[in-house]
Amino acid sequence: MSAPTTASPAFSTFETRLDVRPDDIDMNRHVHNSRYLDYVLAARYDQMERCYRMSMADFLDRGFSWVVKVAHIEHKRPLEMGDSVVVRTRVEALHPRGVRVEFEIVKASDEKLSAKGWFEYVMVHADTGRPALIPEDIAAKYAV
Amino acid sequence: MSAPTTASPAFSTFETRLDVRPDDIDMNRHVHNSRYLDYVLAARYDQMERCYRMSMADFLDRGFSWVVKVAHIEHKRPLEMGDSVVVRTRVEALHPRGVRVEFEIVKASDEKLSAKGWFEYVMVHADTGRPALIPEDIAAKYAV
Amino acid sequence: MSAPTTASPAFSTFETRLDVRPDDIDMNRHVHNSRYLDYVLAARYDQMERCYRMSMADFLDRGFSWVVKVAHIEHKRPLEMGDSVVVRTRVEALHPRGVRVEFEIVKASDEKLSAKGWFEYVMVHADTGRPALIPEDIAAKYAV
Amino acid sequence: MSAPTTASPAFSTFETRLDVRPDDIDMNRHVHNSRYLDYVLAARYDQMERCYRMSMADFLDRGFSWVVKVAHIEHKRPLEMGDSVVVRTRVEALHPRGVRVEFEIVKASDEKLSAKGWFEYVMVHADTGRPALIPEDIAAKYAV
Repeated sequence: MSAPTTASPAFSTFETRLDVRPDDIDMNRHVHNSRYLDYVLAARYDQMERCYRMSMADFLDRGFSWVVKVAHIEHKRPLEMGDSVVVRTRVEALHPRGVRVEFEIVKASDEKLSAKGWFEYVMVHADTGRPALIPEDIAAKYAV
Repeated sequence: MSAPTTASPAFSTFETRLDVRPDDIDMNRHVHNSRYLDYVLAARYDQMERCYRMSMADFLDRGFSWVVKVAHIEHKRPLEMGDSVVVRTRVEALHPRGVRVEFEIVKASDEKLSAKGWFEYVMVHADTGRPALIPEDIAAKYAV
Repeated sequence: MSAPTTASPAFSTFETRLDVRPDDIDMNRHVHNSRYLDYVLAARYDQMERCYRMSMADFLDRGFSWVVKVAHIEHKRPLEMGDSVVVRTRVEALHPRGVRVEFEIVKASDEKLSAKGWFEYVMVHADTGRPALIPEDIAAKYAV
Repeated sequence: MSAPTTASPAFSTFETRLDVRPDDIDMNRHVHNSRYLDYVLAARYDQMERCYRMSMADFLDRGFSWVVKVAHIEHKRPLEMGDSVVVRTRVEALHPRGVRVEFEIVKASDEKLSAKGWFEYVMVHADTGRPALIPEDIAAKYAV
């Protein structure tokens, strides 16, 4: 269901396939704008476990969590009921306290771009919500 | 924003007003079926705190939580973007381990019935999720 | 992805697999009650097209639509982030103006029952929303 | 429920109050990231009708609709169950084919900033989805 598809010098791109659900559709019969962010979050959860070998549960076990600081999305083509999408994400930059992730959402049937953008996540201590330094072994896992 | 509106011999009816949000609307330009359940859950949260004087946070502090066992809903008239609703709920029966709550959702503008139904909740120990006996003081709060 | 799994004398059971998404999870770290209904609606859309050979778009083209009149759901075991589910539905009864559909949602990993229930749908004229008689050729498609 | 709160030289700021709903809450017991966009969209719908005197229905009647091209959001403080928010929006720039809207979401109880950002909308012909020139009378309504 996923494999590196394009390789930047530093970071791999991973992908996750998702099907549009009825409740995603809005009054214009398109996927509602807010749902695209959830598609990306769903893809990251999937890829954290499957591609980076460290699931959100693993992060929580170590006392860490990820928090979205900034989300930026550009819409290109609407999605409709019955569509499936492929969500590709790539770590663009790894900072001491966070990570910037680029994404693109393409329609599965024709590979046409539906939306693209980026997220900035910061790592926090799960109990306090305060920013944390990303441990070296975790940084190494993300440097694939 | 709310007061008992009709009194059964045993239990009061409370009400909460909510506005339809864009993401509630489905491809038929009506509120999506699944959202009605969230309207009722939102109303119960509001009423637990405001009308029964015991919020969900209070329950959690005592080590208890409520879990939905059964939900039943009958749709009468669709809701649309721009509508506000009044959600009325009433404890219909109080059992040693749970409570049955009736609800109706009416359009705020004309009081016409949009949906009605009932929920069965059971009380559980928040840490284990296992069923709990409802303590007498909590049962007393619900017997208004 | 789907095939008749058990056969009643009259009607087939079809199934659809879905993955839990982050936004489905509620404050108890379980899938929110209202999302189960969307899982069933998603499964029916999928099965209308794939198993009954008449998609919602086909219905709309003929001037018809389906409306949920009653939904009834019993929760057995919670679902969590990372779970996949199989939604099985079966036409239980076909009436001149509607259909009753039974469903069960099981966890994909262990086949344990998470929820079960039924929906009553009525067919309507898409332009007016008024009840329609189900044409014989459509009834025949549902009698598989 | 709303009035201009701060005035830029050119454009007014309007506000809409919303209550967090149970289904908005995610596994971290905070409002899920994707819901903030829906809060802003809900506020704009409300303000289009109430503050700009031209509802989305009015736009559709004239054959126009608005489409989100870009959304950008920065998260400052999480929101929780029981919170109410005030969503303030302001037209920042009016272009021949679109509008840029700034927003901020503050917690109603203490006015602390939860999130801020901006949306770029383009006007489209509702039937074709193709970009449209904003008619002068509509531009005038937005220039308040």
